[in-house]
Amino acid sequence: MRILTAGESHGFANSVIIEGFPAGVKIEDKYINAQLKRRMSGYGRGKRMDLESDTCAVISGLRNKFTLGSPIALLIKNKDHRILPQSDDAQPALNVPRPAHADLAGALKYGTSDVRDILERASARETTARVACGALLRQFLEEFGVGIAGFTVSCGKVASKLAPASIEEILGNTEGSWLNCIDSKAEKAMIKEIDRAQRNGDTLGGVIEVWAQGVCPGLGSHVHYDRRLDARLAMALMSIPAVKGVEIGLGFEYAGQYGSTSHDEIFYAKGKGFYHKTNHSGGIEGGMSNGEPIVARVAMKPIATLKRPLRSVDLVSRKPQAAIVERSDTCALAACSVIAESMLAIVLTESFLEKFGGDCLSDIKASYAAYIKRIK
Amino acid sequence: MRILTAGESHGFANSVIIEGFPAGVKIEDKYINAQLKRRMSGYGRGKRMDLESDTCAVISGLRNKFTLGSPIALLIKNKDHRILPQSDDAQPALNVPRPAHADLAGALKYGTSDVRDILERASARETTARVACGALLRQFLEEFGVGIAGFTVSCGKVASKLAPASIEEILGNTEGSWLNCIDSKAEKAMIKEIDRAQRNGDTLGGVIEVWAQGVCPGLGSHVHYDRRLDARLAMALMSIPAVKGVEIGLGFEYAGQYGSTSHDEIFYAKGKGFYHKTNHSGGIEGGMSNGEPIVARVAMKPIATLKRPLRSVDLVSRKPQAAIVERSDTCALAACSVIAESMLAIVLTESFLEKFGGDCLSDIKASYAAYIKRIK
Amino acid sequence: MRILTAGESHGFANSVIIEGFPAGVKIEDKYINAQLKRRMSGYGRGKRMDLESDTCAVISGLRNKFTLGSPIALLIKNKDHRILPQSDDAQPALNVPRPAHADLAGALKYGTSDVRDILERASARETTARVACGALLRQFLEEFGVGIAGFTVSCGKVASKLAPASIEEILGNTEGSWLNCIDSKAEKAMIKEIDRAQRNGDTLGGVIEVWAQGVCPGLGSHVHYDRRLDARLAMALMSIPAVKGVEIGLGFEYAGQYGSTSHDEIFYAKGKGFYHKTNHSGGIEGGMSNGEPIVARVAMKPIATLKRPLRSVDLVSRKPQAAIVERSDTCALAACSVIAESMLAIVLTESFLEKFGGDCLSDIKASYAAYIKRIK
Amino acid sequence: MRILTAGESHGFANSVIIEGFPAGVKIEDKYINAQLKRRMSGYGRGKRMDLESDTCAVISGLRNKFTLGSPIALLIKNKDHRILPQSDDAQPALNVPRPAHADLAGALKYGTSDVRDILERASARETTARVACGALLRQFLEEFGVGIAGFTVSCGKVASKLAPASIEEILGNTEGSWLNCIDSKAEKAMIKEIDRAQRNGDTLGGVIEVWAQGVCPGLGSHVHYDRRLDARLAMALMSIPAVKGVEIGLGFEYAGQYGSTSHDEIFYAKGKGFYHKTNHSGGIEGGMSNGEPIVARVAMKPIATLKRPLRSVDLVSRKPQAAIVERSDTCALAACSVIAESMLAIVLTESFLEKFGGDCLSDIKASYAAYIKRIK
Repeated sequence: MRILTAGESHGFANSVIIEGFPAGVKIEDKYINAQLKRRMSGYGRGKRMDLESDTCAVISGLRNKFTLGSPIALLIKNKDHRILPQSDDAQPALNVPRPAHADLAGALKYGTSDVRDILERASARETTARVACGALLRQFLEEFGVGIAGFTVSCGKVASKLAPASIEEILGNTEGSWLNCIDSKAEKAMIKEIDRAQRNGDTLGGVIEVWAQGVCPGLGSHVHYDRRLDARLAMALMSIPAVKGVEIGLGFEYAGQYGSTSHDEIFYAKGKGFYHKTNHSGGIEGGMSNGEPIVARVAMKPIATLKRPLRSVDLVSRKPQAAIVERSDTCALAACSVIAESMLAIVLTESFLEKFGGDCLSDIKASYAAYIKRIK
Repeated sequence: MRILTAGESHGFANSVIIEGFPAGVKIEDKYINAQLKRRMSGYGRGKRMDLESDTCAVISGLRNKFTLGSPIALLIKNKDHRILPQSDDAQPALNVPRPAHADLAGALKYGTSDVRDILERASARETTARVACGALLRQFLEEFGVGIAGFTVSCGKVASKLAPASIEEILGNTEGSWLNCIDSKAEKAMIKEIDRAQRNGDTLGGVIEVWAQGVCPGLGSHVHYDRRLDARLAMALMSIPAVKGVEIGLGFEYAGQYGSTSHDEIFYAKGKGFYHKTNHSGGIEGGMSNGEPIVARVAMKPIATLKRPLRSVDLVSRKPQAAIVERSDTCALAACSVIAESMLAIVLTESFLEKFGGDCLSDIKASYAAYIKRIK
Repeated sequence: MRILTAGESHGFANSVIIEGFPAGVKIEDKYINAQLKRRMSGYGRGKRMDLESDTCAVISGLRNKFTLGSPIALLIKNKDHRILPQSDDAQPALNVPRPAHADLAGALKYGTSDVRDILERASARETTARVACGALLRQFLEEFGVGIAGFTVSCGKVASKLAPASIEEILGNTEGSWLNCIDSKAEKAMIKEIDRAQRNGDTLGGVIEVWAQGVCPGLGSHVHYDRRLDARLAMALMSIPAVKGVEIGLGFEYAGQYGSTSHDEIFYAKGKGFYHKTNHSGGIEGGMSNGEPIVARVAMKPIATLKRPLRSVDLVSRKPQAAIVERSDTCALAACSVIAESMLAIVLTESFLEKFGGDCLSDIKASYAAYIKRIK
Repeated sequence: MRILTAGESHGFANSVIIEGFPAGVKIEDKYINAQLKRRMSGYGRGKRMDLESDTCAVISGLRNKFTLGSPIALLIKNKDHRILPQSDDAQPALNVPRPAHADLAGALKYGTSDVRDILERASARETTARVACGALLRQFLEEFGVGIAGFTVSCGKVASKLAPASIEEILGNTEGSWLNCIDSKAEKAMIKEIDRAQRNGDTLGGVIEVWAQGVCPGLGSHVHYDRRLDARLAMALMSIPAVKGVEIGLGFEYAGQYGSTSHDEIFYAKGKGFYHKTNHSGGIEGGMSNGEPIVARVAMKPIATLKRPLRSVDLVSRKPQAAIVERSDTCALAACSVIAESMLAIVLTESFLEKFGGDCLSDIKASYAAYIKRIK
């Protein structure tokens, strides 16, 4: 499976082409639009979010709701379309790179002094394409009982200690939550923290946890470093804008443990097959899924654009200049969770198709059933 | 650049082919062997390490010490060669998967009940190939002033608080250290911790930090999620056996900070170009290197094979059975650092060649010099 | 550079995403539309061609006519849009695969008995995306003096013997030609041949030749089989629907020659550098461009859909049934030339960017100029 | 599946790493060595061939004759080892590029004036690695009834008109042939032609045909241009040194035919499934295998190194100079056939694994059987 996305923040549209996806999978665009809506919600978002109500059109690869096996193209039009491809968009040049953004490195790399040439693509708006793609892929994964969910673990210094037992619990407890939190008490404190930061013209980050449940053992591989499921998951999650850390299972906590108390022992039960009573490994051992839920956490840095501007330098005059303020989110944790779920869906679908091959859903279902039978 | 590695732990050899590496780069095999030696050292390693004294032969792609532009093949023979390709190696089947290893998922995936078929490749012995490869690539990076170094931050519950200012400081302070630590006081406590764990038949993990200094701005890209330098680095580091977490710069600490105090502001000085006074971002912003040192940390879980065996199940009888004890390292942090440095070298060389193209060192040097001049 | 295309023949649109294309390249959409128009013209095309007047919108990656370095998305809407993604398109099932098409193998592979699920993507309509992509890339290649042109060598049994000396000659002599032929006398005979075939409800193929002039030596590489320029060119040209043969330079004629009379000797002249007085190799030796014009020929089989239907079998009843007639072109050689030129542009741009790296046009121009200076 | 090869003509060894090959496949190294021997034989080869008796060692990925799923490494040592990686090999510089070789373009590209740096890798000796790889893959394909064979169609101006009906006929009739020809009468004339060329210090090329029989329908795909089986096959075959043309089925002959007489009609028979009575398409329609034998032809140019040297230029002095004579084959058609068969095996295995996934032979066999049952 190959995926390419395109789109500037204020361009005509964000788009995706997914090549190598099987035929015969039922795709509902309302499922995709529901995920796009989730991406836009969440406490702490600024005004632009209110205006957006993204809808995704599947423009290729689908007929009468079923995939054809041909490349799938998704198109999400932007409401606010100011970047003009073939005529002058007449926006004033923006010569001051904002710290903690792609602006400076991007302007140097791509040879421009107008950082708008960079920030239009570097904007987190780009993740609409990933979410649309992930939402499509999740409809495939659900055919095999794979469910994905995520939630906010911490926001700034406020952390939840609750640990869910299943994605059903995550989905149940985050429903209606403003911050996609499973811990309503912690959520209240988080909202206070966001309000305070907002009053101060400041921003916040936090930690998100994502789960995939129902993943069969044997996705990924130990045989080559770039085929390991944990490596691919780390890449996918670290690629989310503002993410600076990724951990699987116990993650950094493992480093302070003993082997005798931290490893997941192996058991067997008829009908159930091999299983573990603990899941410190986060469902991945030796670079492969081991049948337990896949659990990963990401650390998001505080939103980079502050109302209280940071110090920077004008790219043309090379003189000090305060960075401009383009947007005004205080915190985007709820969106980050949706994006992380989408990236998890991408990694799992890729690994799934590598393992089971197959050009149409019915063939893949047959291969899958035979495999599950063999390993039990 | 494409890299493939091969080799079983007790096979004939570990090998690597590197395709797409430029011509005209001077390669000293003694440099490679020095890194291989570092990989084998470190307090906490078991007996096998004493026996090993890996040497790497460059068998293709090199002539009179200079690369030809053709694929480079590296061969590191194993001393202890028991896996026979064309006749029966007569080793008894091993039917009990060891927890926290690739054994169980691998046996299910690849359809075997003899976990030796899996553990031979899943063994960390495989990382000799990566270290040899990384050591070769580092000789290329050094042509552009890029230096790489790593050190042990914590071992079990013992952590060092010292923060280095440069790779020269890391290299200077880790020299002669048994645990590749820059903090000799913490190191003593770590060694005690290792001794205690060893007495208890237990194992330890820890945290490693790696640096790359001298990296120009603009490696990686914000334009597509899988071209981001942070994403690729996360993949490379998470692919190291036993690594369960990766963070860049402040990493998870970022999540508890405010935007106003955590972002790196931008400055300019003639001759020096654009720079930052802080490096919370770990040298990567918007998926690109920003000119500051690249700083990443990895969390290593405790070694999976314990002298006090964990509970498991026989793959044939499906009855409970204690896992066997194959090796006896207590802690492999020093080796982990060398491997992490190697993976960093792989990611940087890849990104470097993507950016500067060029089939021979002199062409790349010309492109590089022109770029550096332009961005200053 | 990565390219993905999507689109069904009667879907909403054909689209392309091009990832990895440099910043700072001026793109005129009228240039793209001109190539799309060329694709639709040519003697021997049926009615649908008259209706089509494709226009391409660059919807991402471009601002004020210049590329941003971010992924470029192209959208070519279909006039005749009948394939509905999210509701029933109510077209009757088509159960009889047409010989010489993708219908049968596609239906088996993708698990459908309605061959419309296959032919919608397998239709040559898909090549609009390639032509749009190629037309965009040609604007990059022209920055380096690379010009591309093609012409019809033979149509059915009628062949032209004229051999052009340059692309200027090709462009000059094909202008106004109904069959993109440089030989007006042969063209008349070809047109007669087409008229006769049309009267008989029959179809024709032929041979096309494409040239790329101004290509510097050293694109492609001998070091690995899949990096050879000739191999990549063969892949690109053979991927054109209906193409069954590809040859470079003398091609199959080489097989009947002696080494002493067929190889291109090497000369040198100040200012000009190394050159050849003959070009039997078609500009590629050892898998690399050698500085002479790249010359390749493709053989196109007769159009597969005939007015006199061929014998086939109903996929559901498994009983004999005549294949249906979907379209009515007699000959599509002129279009094939445009597509072949586009595929050549894709291969050359890929190889060019691999060699010269660079994220923006000015950097690539600097690398290129330094290389040209070195090799002269 | 990923494949990398390495090796210089007079280096220590040629090697291959094959990553992504399934577990549980029985590999006999004597099968590989038999193909390597075939590569070295054939009328028209020079002296070096007599000295060579290549043997291939499988050094990784294999245990007790069965693959492990881990990367497979192959090593074929060179008898004549003169290229020294770590010390001066003291061979005089070779400054005169040989026409029709990689020498000139390679020297310019890789920045050397000693063409030995280029010709060592560009030598056809590199194809030992491909043949070893192909011979390994053929043992996988044979598990699914896929057989591959090739033969010499023409040598210089002497052509055979015989058309085989099956690979059994090819294998039977080429046995014992000095030129891998199925036509003993034509072979005699070819041998005379070779003798004459040899006396004249001249060289010859020719045409080779390769077959794959037993390939199920649906390998490759019409959905994206670079997934078409014909495109990939063209790439693989054109990548063979000295090959300048590739055609599938009727190939260039198609161009002179009518649609009504050249397309393969579709039939059905119980037990047999869908089939064709003719095979003009060479077993590939719409970019996919259609169940009939895959038939391709390649045109090989005359051997580039002549005893009567061609004109060239000294890279240092830039003065005219006759090219040197490194080797003395007159004709290498028999070897070309073995290489073409190997490249066909690579393409088919790749497409096969893409379609059927599976990490071990038994899983792939189950998927395959289910597919075959479905399409009949």
